[in-house]
Amino acid sequence: MSRIAFIGLGNMGAPMAANLLKAGHALRVFDLTPAAVDAAVAAGGVAATSAIDAVVDADIVISMLPASRHVEGLYLDASSGLLPHIPTHALVIDCSTIAPATARKVAEAAAKHGLAMIDAPVSGGTAGAAAGTLTFIVGGEATALERARPILANMGKNIFHVGSSGAGQVAKLCNNMALGVIMAVTGEALALGVSHGLDAKVLSQMMAVSTARSWATEVCNPWPGVLENAPASRGYTGGFGNDLMLKDLGLAAEAAMSVGASIPLGELARNLYAMNSRAGHGGLDFSSVVKLVAKDV
Amino acid sequence: MSRIAFIGLGNMGAPMAANLLKAGHALRVFDLTPAAVDAAVAAGGVAATSAIDAVVDADIVISMLPASRHVEGLYLDASSGLLPHIPTHALVIDCSTIAPATARKVAEAAAKHGLAMIDAPVSGGTAGAAAGTLTFIVGGEATALERARPILANMGKNIFHVGSSGAGQVAKLCNNMALGVIMAVTGEALALGVSHGLDAKVLSQMMAVSTARSWATEVCNPWPGVLENAPASRGYTGGFGNDLMLKDLGLAAEAAMSVGASIPLGELARNLYAMNSRAGHGGLDFSSVVKLVAKDV
Repeated sequence: MSRIAFIGLGNMGAPMAANLLKAGHALRVFDLTPAAVDAAVAAGGVAATSAIDAVVDADIVISMLPASRHVEGLYLDASSGLLPHIPTHALVIDCSTIAPATARKVAEAAAKHGLAMIDAPVSGGTAGAAAGTLTFIVGGEATALERARPILANMGKNIFHVGSSGAGQVAKLCNNMALGVIMAVTGEALALGVSHGLDAKVLSQMMAVSTARSWATEVCNPWPGVLENAPASRGYTGGFGNDLMLKDLGLAAEAAMSVGASIPLGELARNLYAMNSRAGHGGLDFSSVVKLVAKDV
Repeated sequence: MSRIAFIGLGNMGAPMAANLLKAGHALRVFDLTPAAVDAAVAAGGVAATSAIDAVVDADIVISMLPASRHVEGLYLDASSGLLPHIPTHALVIDCSTIAPATARKVAEAAAKHGLAMIDAPVSGGTAGAAAGTLTFIVGGEATALERARPILANMGKNIFHVGSSGAGQVAKLCNNMALGVIMAVTGEALALGVSHGLDAKVLSQMMAVSTARSWATEVCNPWPGVLENAPASRGYTGGFGNDLMLKDLGLAAEAAMSVGASIPLGELARNLYAMNSRAGHGGLDFSSVVKLVAKDV
């Protein structure tokens, strides 16, 4: 069992930390929100007084933060950055979804402090975090991943090693960019069919066993009433927020520009999710993007 | 066993007719290309001297033609149109992929001649046609579909009744529009990953079990070498041609405009496949659209 510092106890971090506690690890936890720390303590963790206090005696440091600036601040801040305080034998695992360039920058700085670090963003959402069935998409050295593997296995069921530092972030953005486009075009297709008098459920059933099948037709169908358990059937609540998809598409656009890559559909999708956010749906599940093209959903 | 008139013996029609012959039906076949007729006769069909000659004694009339204008001409031409020559007890099944408005127009004209007609475009490609595993997407009266069902079952394995006349065409266009977008964005995602140093095969394997999974990641991956049996791994030959996808996206755009529907991603994809055609790749598999955004594929 390891001594783990867990920083960031939000919608994803809290259930991930809970699964590590269930597996028998000793966790020192920190979050800027006291209530989040209290909940983790109730689950068996020890409250740290600061992020530095959490890491000083750790074998493993795990962070799960909202965006690039939080990760950069946590590790690299001139006064409160963690890197000088983490024991050099420790392994650092950042599970946040952030810009690949930031992931590389932090990993390089960690290496200068003698620390091994991997980027391990996740796929599977809050349901996967709670069930311990997340997919980890890992960038970094293979030896570091092998050290992390038993810990990650306590929180997820699939682990993909996709390349060196930052590659986990790139791969996650590639997946989510495609997902964002697939969701939006599935909405377009269903709205087009309904405009011609078709039934969205019958059309979805046909598409789900045909060449247009996807997670959007089979699991998270954007049309209300087609799938009972999808966010669309409960007013687009729960699920993966529109503004989180918007954030990932923005990161994909930055990643594309940084290497001169073309992502015409990804860019258009980013604009569609931005329009859906502007329409007041930023907090709804991202499948609510169908509202841009459909009536009465 | 039925007396069937089969008109249109191209890449799809020929294997469909062959499966009907195997099932024991009596076929009178016609095509403007004599070699296509010869091949169907070798498979057990009887050559008709004209489309009219094919249908005069038929119980079932099946057409499988390239585009709306061919279907409209076949059935409605003032001098050679088939409708006045088809026995009124016969059932007409058009399997072509055409504009929904054309399908409705021809079905209405058929009804005026006392003829039942369904639109039954297919999904599954030439491989599905040869194997008898096509999916039929049917628009028209339920009673007409029930008469057609045993015949369709000789050529395919899934039959979806999606609505009244023209609905089969609408549903097929919805599916293919989504497919065209999904294929193109999968190419964008893989090209973005490769530009950042990722391996297209590892990235595809991750996406294939994640939320971006689709027929494009699992069956017809657009990156050469990822899937041995995909067109991309044999120079983008075989498969579903770029210009056929371009045709379907054009029909989807017409269908959207006719009801004031928005298909922003579908329209952008139509432009991408048009650019790929302009680049000289019109005859290649539609997954070659990745060439617009990737080097060395």
